Amino acid sequence: MRQILNLKNLAWIVLFFSLDGFSLDEIVKKQEFKLPHYETVGGKKILNVRIGYETYGTLNADKRNVILITHYFSGSSHAAGKYAAHDLAPGYWDAVIGPGKAFDTTKYFIISSDTLVNINPKDPNVMTTGPLSINPATKKTYGSSFPVVTYRDFVRVQKELLSSLGINQLVAVAGPSAGSMQALQWAAEYPEMVKRVIAVISPGLSMPALTIGVLNDWASPILRDPKWKKGNYAKGKEPVDGLADAFKAVTISAVDFAWAEQNFKNNFADPKKSPTDSLSNQYLIESKLMEGSNLKTNYADANSFLYMVRANQAFNIENEISKLKSPILFISASTDLLFPPELTRASALKINQAGGSASVTVIDGIGGHLAGLFSIANAAPDIKRFLGKAPSKK
Amino acid sequence: MRQILNLKNLAWIVLFFSLDGFSLDEIVKKQEFKLPHYETVGGKKILNVRIGYETYGTLNADKRNVILITHYFSGSSHAAGKYAAHDLAPGYWDAVIGPGKAFDTTKYFIISSDTLVNINPKDPNVMTTGPLSINPATKKTYGSSFPVVTYRDFVRVQKELLSSLGINQLVAVAGPSAGSMQALQWAAEYPEMVKRVIAVISPGLSMPALTIGVLNDWASPILRDPKWKKGNYAKGKEPVDGLADAFKAVTISAVDFAWAEQNFKNNFADPKKSPTDSLSNQYLIESKLMEGSNLKTNYADANSFLYMVRANQAFNIENEISKLKSPILFISASTDLLFPPELTRASALKINQAGGSASVTVIDGIGGHLAGLFSIANAAPDIKRFLGKAPSKK
Repeated sequence: MRQILNLKNLAWIVLFFSLDGFSLDEIVKKQEFKLPHYETVGGKKILNVRIGYETYGTLNADKRNVILITHYFSGSSHAAGKYAAHDLAPGYWDAVIGPGKAFDTTKYFIISSDTLVNINPKDPNVMTTGPLSINPATKKTYGSSFPVVTYRDFVRVQKELLSSLGINQLVAVAGPSAGSMQALQWAAEYPEMVKRVIAVISPGLSMPALTIGVLNDWASPILRDPKWKKGNYAKGKEPVDGLADAFKAVTISAVDFAWAEQNFKNNFADPKKSPTDSLSNQYLIESKLMEGSNLKTNYADANSFLYMVRANQAFNIENEISKLKSPILFISASTDLLFPPELTRASALKINQAGGSASVTVIDGIGGHLAGLFSIANAAPDIKRFLGKAPSKK
Repeated sequence: MRQILNLKNLAWIVLFFSLDGFSLDEIVKKQEFKLPHYETVGGKKILNVRIGYETYGTLNADKRNVILITHYFSGSSHAAGKYAAHDLAPGYWDAVIGPGKAFDTTKYFIISSDTLVNINPKDPNVMTTGPLSINPATKKTYGSSFPVVTYRDFVRVQKELLSSLGINQLVAVAGPSAGSMQALQWAAEYPEMVKRVIAVISPGLSMPALTIGVLNDWASPILRDPKWKKGNYAKGKEPVDGLADAFKAVTISAVDFAWAEQNFKNNFADPKKSPTDSLSNQYLIESKLMEGSNLKTNYADANSFLYMVRANQAFNIENEISKLKSPILFISASTDLLFPPELTRASALKINQAGGSASVTVIDGIGGHLAGLFSIANAAPDIKRFLGKAPSKK
């Protein structure tokens, strides 16, 4: 684990990949789900919806051994395995998905799904529908004319994907961060279908007001970039500076003191140029954050980032708590500064008081919020135990 | 205490004033200290240095009853009392400075000092020397030609102020956040002179690498503002948008979950305009953060903000730990997400292992990092007890 946290892998860490050495012994392939039309919760129609998904393991004849994995803010459905043997890194939760692992592919059929408005629509391995998609009505990209969508829309599209495969019951829905919100939204939206929820590095039942503000702070650099033009930017004229600063803000929110100290201390970006000599000289963490964030803009889209921010801000199932009857396992990270364990403890209490069944496990691991990706192996015994339990009777 | 945390006072909270009802029964006056020339630690000469200061209480004949108060990032030397009876708020630590209070003005002579590169040079009650000052050599504002200064420079100028008053011993140096760093820097720079240190909501002995990154994130909106022009902006053409976003980032870093929840929940800025209908509709916390941050730009200067960021990034007395022989009281706030109590605990351990004497008190109080301002009264007994103790023998 130490290996992935050293400096030379920073770019990868910023790219939010896990570099765990034990990969699923399987070459995975992105698959495409198409939905000719979808009406959003807000009543807007979207034609030609498509999202990508990956599967690991084998679907039983009764189609009742399915676990759905939902991804984090800047992630995709690439949760395990490699696309090719020479890939530098496997999917983000490869440490817990595979034969004999916590999400055991000899038992379960794992479906990992992309979402609407994925923020990396230029990644060849992401399939999504969002502001960078072509609006069939105009033959141009939607840009800011794409309807606002929420987590409820995300899961309704995923439900269509599962229905297309004949699946109408889930052993569990599990995901980290934004993935945890999808998992909880699934339980609220389709309580009969979802037998268990594993919500990792989660805010709990709703986006805290503080984090609504943090998300605003992430989005601001895009809105201020003169190239953003209220979302109507053309190819080659994207607001990449704003987008890079947005990623920088995400990254610094998602890591922790120990990780930063271990990698950077107060070292200078250029050992010969002291930051106390000139404002234009930088500390190492400053230049590396920028470097990693600039890399991210190759695959990302500024408008998509804004739509994903809004979906996150709007996450709230506090009023649907009575629907949450399936057991819920919250897995928080002790060093998480974005969603500290206190948040899931408070939500678990509310759920239990409302007659549900929620518990909280806190894992250690350097990386802050990102421990939910990098250190997920620490939660493997808890996940295994939780999946082995019978779901509550309804 | 509840009173100051409600919504209608948000602008004040963002302005980082304390609205505690019990004001020092004294009208205070800003005073000016002038230093004809100062050579920075980096070897640059600054002419006509001036900083402001305020005093509370009476200086003894032996001039040995002096406590120096040093201010936070966006604060000033207005630590207690009011300038006029009708002022809306007294100084930021009024709750603990006054007759019979923790910093008892019937016993101590309190000097509260401005720093170099104060970020609010347009505030009529701030006196400072920084990028918005006139360079006597060119008769123009320095802008980005002002030399980089660090906390060591801050305290050296303050030392000249005290010397001008004939003061050569301090009962204590005390301050919140950036003020805590000045206090610690004082102890490292003038160990014989400083008898006690009270470091409130402090990072400890150095700026953590993570926070060097956070500070970069605060500064970025200014650097990206097309009006910044590498620091060479003219009056009336300042990068106010970037500066406002910088303050927004500061504020969201400095508060906590409970404070945000209590004031905003997921309410809409305009109850009739749902944020899920359009990206341009906002949540209440978004509009209020912007409103408060825009207000702040009236008094602040973008370049000064950048210089203060750099001074903060450069704070580091880890290698001077052997000089810290005076007792040090760290007062951290339990909900502080910017400088969690773990940081001061680690520093106190290092200091004690090096033969010094440091202890940590953790106060409760809503407000996160800002609990070090709003809830400082909770630390009053600890401060009183600490000031009553005899300093270590040297």
